[in-house]
Amino acid sequence: MHVQQMIATHPHVRGNTNDALIRCIEACLDCAQTCTACADACLGEARVAELTQCIRLNLDCADVCAATGLVGSRRTGSNELIIRRLIETCAEACRLCGDECDRHAEHMDHCRVCAETCRDCERLCREAAETITPRLQ
Amino acid sequence: MHVQQMIATHPHVRGNTNDALIRCIEACLDCAQTCTACADACLGEARVAELTQCIRLNLDCADVCAATGLVGSRRTGSNELIIRRLIETCAEACRLCGDECDRHAEHMDHCRVCAETCRDCERLCREAAETITPRLQ
Amino acid sequence: MHVQQMIATHPHVRGNTNDALIRCIEACLDCAQTCTACADACLGEARVAELTQCIRLNLDCADVCAATGLVGSRRTGSNELIIRRLIETCAEACRLCGDECDRHAEHMDHCRVCAETCRDCERLCREAAETITPRLQ
Amino acid sequence: MHVQQMIATHPHVRGNTNDALIRCIEACLDCAQTCTACADACLGEARVAELTQCIRLNLDCADVCAATGLVGSRRTGSNELIIRRLIETCAEACRLCGDECDRHAEHMDHCRVCAETCRDCERLCREAAETITPRLQ
Repeated sequence: MHVQQMIATHPHVRGNTNDALIRCIEACLDCAQTCTACADACLGEARVAELTQCIRLNLDCADVCAATGLVGSRRTGSNELIIRRLIETCAEACRLCGDECDRHAEHMDHCRVCAETCRDCERLCREAAETITPRLQ
Repeated sequence: MHVQQMIATHPHVRGNTNDALIRCIEACLDCAQTCTACADACLGEARVAELTQCIRLNLDCADVCAATGLVGSRRTGSNELIIRRLIETCAEACRLCGDECDRHAEHMDHCRVCAETCRDCERLCREAAETITPRLQ
Repeated sequence: MHVQQMIATHPHVRGNTNDALIRCIEACLDCAQTCTACADACLGEARVAELTQCIRLNLDCADVCAATGLVGSRRTGSNELIIRRLIETCAEACRLCGDECDRHAEHMDHCRVCAETCRDCERLCREAAETITPRLQ
Repeated sequence: MHVQQMIATHPHVRGNTNDALIRCIEACLDCAQTCTACADACLGEARVAELTQCIRLNLDCADVCAATGLVGSRRTGSNELIIRRLIETCAEACRLCGDECDRHAEHMDHCRVCAETCRDCERLCREAAETITPRLQ
């Protein structure tokens, strides 16, 4: 991924990068792909009927992560309130999806990898959220 | 749009639809398209340099609205906490984008239409949010 | 939806709208929501294990429709080659998803509505594609 | 990214991975983020009025790349025709965006990085497309 390079070369940033936010964006895009793939892998399991809540949380988490990764990538002008709220919502979506995947991690490797990816993304979202102070708007 | 029909025919819903949520989903997808189009119309204006904050808020609002419309469409299992947080974040994104478009509404019809669409979406998001009670998770 | 209004007020369009493209954009966003909802409704069916191919085509169709609706909404500058290819790909995605949903339409109303929505979107994509002539690039 | 791990642990894949497709998916998500960030960086430039075609191609490329990365991640059931068409369309979107960014690469580092990312994504899409043989459908 080129997140660091792209933000470092932004005309309004000029090298003064928020590294917590950069790690958060990378984690969000990784997690969007991982959750999309985990939903599909669960769908391919013989016991899919027991995995419908997992698939649903995976799909929701993927949508939230993708939106968060893209909104977080914009540095022109300002929209700190939305970035912060979205990152916080993303941390919660990752927590809930990670909890559910954890329950299946022993039997299904894709859920084990997805649970770990969600945990990492949750942590990096929480660290990034603390660095963003919305102005009153 | 077929939001009402699709939710009414869902096996877990069986006609017991949340009409405020249905209107919210329709508004979110409408607003995602409108904000995408407004960003592009602003980009086509001779005075684009004065509209960069407007374009940025449009793009952020479009991403949040699209994610909210899709996550809100899922009724299998449960993820009320994320739906509620996302709808609340979407209401704020629409408020900020609508405020900015309003400043240009007198001179640019696309910003006038977009401001109205954002206002409607904000209102319908707030009405839908009140109908969703997250369980402790 | 405000597709017609937004395109009519675009500074590069000035009322000279491509109505086939406008109908295509509306259909794509409608179909993205319908397919997302149909995937979720299939997931909620007791016989979900027989519907995994349907869910997969629904999710693919939703992703392609959403991208097509947004890319088709941009009128600044030009990118006809990509709009045309994407609309043609979208027509195929709708055809395949509509065919699959048709097989389940008798027993599940959400698949019946989704099949009809996919057929409409396929037809409107094909009509719009013919109006777009890519320049050699 | 966890693309390789997620596909290798899919119940229908069982280690028999298509490595060209895996590299393509990774490149598409990277390119979606890079093009989103380049559009925003162009928007932040003093000479934004000269960069509107670049911003438009960036936004289109980002939408196509994101959809391609997600659709390509699904391995349950089959939808080879759509994956192949989408990857081919993505290669063209990357070619056109890369060409445009190249024109500005000397003066703007974000366009230089984006042009390189688009070139890589184009090449990996073309390599992946050749490995996917759609069945007659």
